[in-house]
Amino acid sequence: MQKPERHIFICTSSRVNGQQKGFCHSKDGVAVMMKFMEEIKDRELGGEVFINNTGCFGICEKGPIVVVYPDNVWYGSVTPEDVEEILNKHIEGGNAVERLVI
Amino acid sequence: MQKPERHIFICTSSRVNGQQKGFCHSKDGVAVMMKFMEEIKDRELGGEVFINNTGCFGICEKGPIVVVYPDNVWYGSVTPEDVEEILNKHIEGGNAVERLVI
Repeated sequence: MQKPERHIFICTSSRVNGQQKGFCHSKDGVAVMMKFMEEIKDRELGGEVFINNTGCFGICEKGPIVVVYPDNVWYGSVTPEDVEEILNKHIEGGNAVERLVI
Repeated sequence: MQKPERHIFICTSSRVNGQQKGFCHSKDGVAVMMKFMEEIKDRELGGEVFINNTGCFGICEKGPIVVVYPDNVWYGSVTPEDVEEILNKHIEGGNAVERLVI
């Protein structure tokens, strides 16, 4: 299969039992996810960039968490307002957004 | 922060709205996740190997999906019975389980 060039994982505190609670969920993790989805569609990056919501990364105090593979770059305290900068600088520009790296 | 050596993502069809439906969920994705958690605990790999449940990867017909980064190895049709082989050969042995690769 065709693998994505970059794969973005966003914690939305998705529990396997369907529960919707957790730090990233309470801190707008879902809004961060939605903003990524919207921007990736607008920029027509869908073939190159995959996106997934996830359950807890276990570092809630640094949330909302966004992880980009295969780069292995971990971002913390991400807000919907940070999404365009991550896409511009990192995903399209190739340089991690250092101020958000944890 | 200390990053994991390997990061395993397992589709449990976790929707951001808490809905629990989808192919991987119906095909025991949650049982695959639980088996990985149990084995990683038993093998005391918790510091080196991270594990997350995810929402849909968009390739449901190949599910349940398991993705290992930074290796960028994608597995399909994974059952709870396959988990030990993935851990033995791939995570501890360094070689992907070719029969499950998609």
